[in-house]
Amino acid sequence: MLAPRSDLNLEFRTAMRRLAATVSVVSTFCGERRYGITVTSVTSLSIDPSSLVVCINRNTSVHGPIVSSQRFCISMLRENQSAVARTFSGGHNGAERFTSGDWLDGPMCVPYLRDAQANIFCCVEGSMPYASHTVFIGRVIDVRFREQIRPLLYCDGAYTALPAPARSGEQT
Amino acid sequence: MLAPRSDLNLEFRTAMRRLAATVSVVSTFCGERRYGITVTSVTSLSIDPSSLVVCINRNTSVHGPIVSSQRFCISMLRENQSAVARTFSGGHNGAERFTSGDWLDGPMCVPYLRDAQANIFCCVEGSMPYASHTVFIGRVIDVRFREQIRPLLYCDGAYTALPAPARSGEQT
Repeated sequence: MLAPRSDLNLEFRTAMRRLAATVSVVSTFCGERRYGITVTSVTSLSIDPSSLVVCINRNTSVHGPIVSSQRFCISMLRENQSAVARTFSGGHNGAERFTSGDWLDGPMCVPYLRDAQANIFCCVEGSMPYASHTVFIGRVIDVRFREQIRPLLYCDGAYTALPAPARSGEQT
Repeated sequence: MLAPRSDLNLEFRTAMRRLAATVSVVSTFCGERRYGITVTSVTSLSIDPSSLVVCINRNTSVHGPIVSSQRFCISMLRENQSAVARTFSGGHNGAERFTSGDWLDGPMCVPYLRDAQANIFCCVEGSMPYASHTVFIGRVIDVRFREQIRPLLYCDGAYTALPAPARSGEQT
């Protein structure tokens, strides 16, 4: 039996609090300006060609610029970069956000966070609008990463991280 | 400067080892048979209507049946369900996989894992093929979840989990 729609949306939201995800900043460059927001909606797509998916709300500051520029970078955050995550999901204006963390210009002038655990530069190769969001497919054109694997996670409405050491090994 | 293509694919794969993700089984029912595979490619899309995205390799056993049946369930695994994750990504045949864990028939006969931390039943509302994979948009039609928030995670090629207690709170 289906829940009434309002209950269903609330239940879905509650269920998705259980989906822990790595926190990233998606950034772009358009009209001589930098744009960026915090997202937890990045997932791998294919390896050959290398591609990923990111879902972005159309009401965010970065959506229009990504549609216009057709390029973006995913800066996968490390566990000690929750301040960057907060800045890029908070009330600061677009350009001001980039004072949080050490941002450089990458390929096609797209900004990237120098000490992120990984930076993945993409061109948009497909998009699918749905309700409030657009699903973007990014084809990877360049990759930079650090050896350390210590992702910043978001789960149940809070930032968290894996237990130390980074790799806890197989669960039994 | 762009890396040669083969290097780029390897670097992308290495970078994505840093993207910790919650482990789920995506299951469906088609032609009187159950199908399911382990995935880490589930992400939330919109809240109203409730929807999510899952990326599925076209070579997997579940791809054709999802295209045919236009329905699936995401069973988000708990930290102690890595055996289920291994079974649904291993060499067992389709139907045999469902002997690992306590699977029941949900809406539209789609199987779901009773003690998963969440079960989200979806109808396919959109799909976008890209390279080896298809990006499916699932509109949520029913949700079941447990109170406990202890997701099974996959990072750097291994199953892992959040530190106890489940919610470690804000990082500073």
